[in-house]
Amino acid sequence: MPTDPKHTIHRDHHHFGWDNSLPPVMTVAPGTMLTFETVDASGGQLSPDSTVADVAGIDFDKVNPVTGPVYVDGAKPGDALKITLLGYQPSGWGWTANIPGFGLLADQFPDPALHLWKYDPQRLEPALFGPGGKVPLKPFAGTIGLAPAAPGLHSIVPPRRVGGNMDIRDLSAGTELFLPVEVDGALFSIGDTHAAQGDGEVCGTAIESPMQVTVKLELIRDMALPSPQFITPGPVSRHKDEMGFWVTTGVGTDLYEGARRAVAAMIDELTQAHGMSAVDAYMLCSVCADLKISEIVDQPNWVVSLYFPRMVFD
Amino acid sequence: MPTDPKHTIHRDHHHFGWDNSLPPVMTVAPGTMLTFETVDASGGQLSPDSTVADVAGIDFDKVNPVTGPVYVDGAKPGDALKITLLGYQPSGWGWTANIPGFGLLADQFPDPALHLWKYDPQRLEPALFGPGGKVPLKPFAGTIGLAPAAPGLHSIVPPRRVGGNMDIRDLSAGTELFLPVEVDGALFSIGDTHAAQGDGEVCGTAIESPMQVTVKLELIRDMALPSPQFITPGPVSRHKDEMGFWVTTGVGTDLYEGARRAVAAMIDELTQAHGMSAVDAYMLCSVCADLKISEIVDQPNWVVSLYFPRMVFD
Repeated sequence: MPTDPKHTIHRDHHHFGWDNSLPPVMTVAPGTMLTFETVDASGGQLSPDSTVADVAGIDFDKVNPVTGPVYVDGAKPGDALKITLLGYQPSGWGWTANIPGFGLLADQFPDPALHLWKYDPQRLEPALFGPGGKVPLKPFAGTIGLAPAAPGLHSIVPPRRVGGNMDIRDLSAGTELFLPVEVDGALFSIGDTHAAQGDGEVCGTAIESPMQVTVKLELIRDMALPSPQFITPGPVSRHKDEMGFWVTTGVGTDLYEGARRAVAAMIDELTQAHGMSAVDAYMLCSVCADLKISEIVDQPNWVVSLYFPRMVFD
Repeated sequence: MPTDPKHTIHRDHHHFGWDNSLPPVMTVAPGTMLTFETVDASGGQLSPDSTVADVAGIDFDKVNPVTGPVYVDGAKPGDALKITLLGYQPSGWGWTANIPGFGLLADQFPDPALHLWKYDPQRLEPALFGPGGKVPLKPFAGTIGLAPAAPGLHSIVPPRRVGGNMDIRDLSAGTELFLPVEVDGALFSIGDTHAAQGDGEVCGTAIESPMQVTVKLELIRDMALPSPQFITPGPVSRHKDEMGFWVTTGVGTDLYEGARRAVAAMIDELTQAHGMSAVDAYMLCSVCADLKISEIVDQPNWVVSLYFPRMVFD
């Protein structure tokens, strides 16, 4: 964790949704190192004392705040903003919820559910989940984005060409992210920090956990990116691959339906093998299991696979 | 590699397509260890001396032969066949092709292309690809399946509930695969061996390479599997993760289109960074880059990512 960022952007400086008319919190020169405090994805509506009743009452106008925006001096449409994710300073608490109407299996899980997490923010040892479950941690920011060129207020939920709520679990410490700039100054914001998530974020939430994140913002001139790209400094799964994986599949003509089948099959396996409730298994998959496209060419059937790390129960 | 399989099923005992009326090559007791010789996915139509003209002339009635079928004594519909992949003995040569009309970007790559590979079958060091490229190897069988209950001859190309042409790159040595049995005796066949492949197999072919594969076949009674499942004995990406990944993304409402965009973006990067042709970059992605579903819940836009291992060019 770098100790000498030039500025800290406090958590009060957050906004809901993307809008290129929002006034910047600060203007910085390219190359500046900054620390951002983030608010959790509930916008502070959930706390370590929350119950499932609080999930049912969430006000969606207040979800997924991002801290910013920061104006990067000289950034112009057609450039790329290079964001080096220097380090995360996690808070030690988090939540995972099944929010009605949201998630890959929303039709099968209509009721709210909540799991509260406590973890050591320094040692980042696996976080306990029920009897026997231990979820490996790897902090990252789910939402990292720039203001889009299109005027007006845009929902925070979907990611876009300029990034945003990408929920890519490898935007962790050391990764270099490249986002296409669409407006003068780029207008960078960050939030939605997660202590752990599997590829897919299948139940719709991760280990949602407020943090501080330190980044370096640099400009790359005339880098015409079609969409976000990133470079990881090293392996991306070694925090959870040691014991291998239990893998379920979904085979068929539609990738989305294949993903649903693979997740449903894993939920069945987990409930049978470990006696947990189906919704607990669903939330557990969301924080540690990875969706992969095993094949996408053997017409007309594709294979989507869900990789559940065996070390969670070993 | 186990040295004491009970039988070897020779490559002459292969068939094209799945048909539960095919006479078994052999009947074995559950628990038997067997070695299968496989023919490459061209059915012997390509060789170490082939040229791109041979790709254009491929007879599709002869592709993807599988060796078998083997009748497992006592197997009944409702059971699962457990296939332990004990080891692969690769041949040392292989091919990767762009076959017109086949592959994720078939519309963008209408012309045939061929890359021939040579590798050390014992040491399995990364295989060379053009100037500077080194592709890590991890042998597996692309097609492992049982006869479906539905009568008649079924195409070998699409995978099904009973497995088949799944092209899952982690069906490598040590993995335990579970397939649902739909007919008496299960009728097991295997083929389409690959020296390396990325998740997705985006151009439609891998490092297609004939091998011997040794398996143990066991029965699990009354294991009602919805589709194939497997357990890996350990990490699945350490052969290629050491230097991290360059990652491109596709963001949008359709996973298939997102995968196409991520692959197209990576092809652009590789052609610019390494001066290779677009079709070479496409084939290179197919043998080493992995498609992941980064998020599938942030309505209406999903993120598909293609992870290209940096060690290929480091």
